[in-house]
Amino acid sequence: MSDPRPIGVFDSGLGGLTVVKELFRTMPHETILYLGDTARSPYGDRSEAAIRKFSVQNARFCLTQNIKMLIVACNTASAIALDDIRQIAGDIPVIGVVVSGCKAAVVRTAEKKIGVIGANATIRSDAYSISIQSLDPSIKVYGKPCPLLASLVEVGMIESEIARLTVQYYLYELVDCGIDCLILGCSHYPLLMEVIQGTVGTNIQLIDSAFWAAKEVQDILQALDATAGADVDGIGKSRFFVTDHSPNFEQAAGRFLGQSAISPTTIDLEHR
Amino acid sequence: MSDPRPIGVFDSGLGGLTVVKELFRTMPHETILYLGDTARSPYGDRSEAAIRKFSVQNARFCLTQNIKMLIVACNTASAIALDDIRQIAGDIPVIGVVVSGCKAAVVRTAEKKIGVIGANATIRSDAYSISIQSLDPSIKVYGKPCPLLASLVEVGMIESEIARLTVQYYLYELVDCGIDCLILGCSHYPLLMEVIQGTVGTNIQLIDSAFWAAKEVQDILQALDATAGADVDGIGKSRFFVTDHSPNFEQAAGRFLGQSAISPTTIDLEHR
Repeated sequence: MSDPRPIGVFDSGLGGLTVVKELFRTMPHETILYLGDTARSPYGDRSEAAIRKFSVQNARFCLTQNIKMLIVACNTASAIALDDIRQIAGDIPVIGVVVSGCKAAVVRTAEKKIGVIGANATIRSDAYSISIQSLDPSIKVYGKPCPLLASLVEVGMIESEIARLTVQYYLYELVDCGIDCLILGCSHYPLLMEVIQGTVGTNIQLIDSAFWAAKEVQDILQALDATAGADVDGIGKSRFFVTDHSPNFEQAAGRFLGQSAISPTTIDLEHR
Repeated sequence: MSDPRPIGVFDSGLGGLTVVKELFRTMPHETILYLGDTARSPYGDRSEAAIRKFSVQNARFCLTQNIKMLIVACNTASAIALDDIRQIAGDIPVIGVVVSGCKAAVVRTAEKKIGVIGANATIRSDAYSISIQSLDPSIKVYGKPCPLLASLVEVGMIESEIARLTVQYYLYELVDCGIDCLILGCSHYPLLMEVIQGTVGTNIQLIDSAFWAAKEVQDILQALDATAGADVDGIGKSRFFVTDHSPNFEQAAGRFLGQSAISPTTIDLEHR
């Protein structure tokens, strides 16, 4: 049985398009319904109450669009609001990028020492430590908030000397801890992959949550026998929603998704 | 006649506390009513439609609080939404930091060349050029968006090597243009004053909009004979509202206001 319904993906902004890019690459026949809360991004310094409220509003919108599963592409929302989202999702499967990244890291660390970088709220929540230690309590987790990194990506300073210095500034302590895996705990960080790898060296494996979330979605849909038919033009049928059509949308879509020829629909979530 | 009503001040977030700091310094007997839209900051990359909508919601709240005048401390809101706010303000005077900064710069430039730095939306709006050239059409205005600078202040990297490099990266072109005044067109930038002055040299005068807005408020209240009585403990009676009580509030309040011992009240603007 095939299931032509779209996969819902939401993010605090446009960084979650890195997950969509991986979904398109892994499963080109799947249709995506993407929502970016661009009127209220970033979430990384909001209170837990605000993150929960915004995430539930985002999820509620996606759930009205006849989706077959929901991916929380925002690490902050995934770290803090996943239970709230599952409560309103009924029997629609919900996965968050946090758990996908943790599963990948746990089977890859030989030293049993994993580093995690992300926004302030993501690291403060301890969601990564909790998730990793529920899989293997013997693993040590070293979290480091890196609040400027997402801003660097937002303004397009990806391969600059400033980006290199900032990455060094945030990561030198983590490297000293002896980690052998580093989870990129923010949807913006895959764009800094080269700078980060250059800084931490090749002995530390980088875990891109977007990539592993896409893999997990594929596994789940195959297990449920709910993939789309091979005749579906998933990419062509995918739809993109934002809460604010900001002037940098095209540029950001190009940067995160690898293509900019998408026209978003603007919606208002505030009364949901 | 004295007027004990508070002065309303709103900002997209907490950067506008730099204006409150100047108001407290200039007029310690005035009571301030501050609103920071911390659930939706920053505004600098939002669409004009969103900036107008959020600014009007902020203004509407302040106007329900029996204020005697309203200061738009956010340069982006001031650049884009001042007319919309004046339309709903009735006979309550409204001033924006953009015009205050321009007035100060126009009387200070000998070379008739003024630089302006700010968020993307602020510079894109051309509000500074329009305001300066309405005062003196012979002045040339050089605008430069510096989107990473506010983020640097937000994360507290104020005197770092990274801040110095970023300021150099943004400002070297402006210096080459031969400007002799530089308007700091974002409420965060006063905290980078030393780094900026060190980069552009002492031949370029920095114009701090927060300082000049406070001066203008004082002039207006004196002209209207509407200052507070000298017996009022303005600072003690001032009230602070936010749309999200984020965990970094104390730290940010300390950084922007010079004191952190204020307790904000959280309000919801979304239904206004």
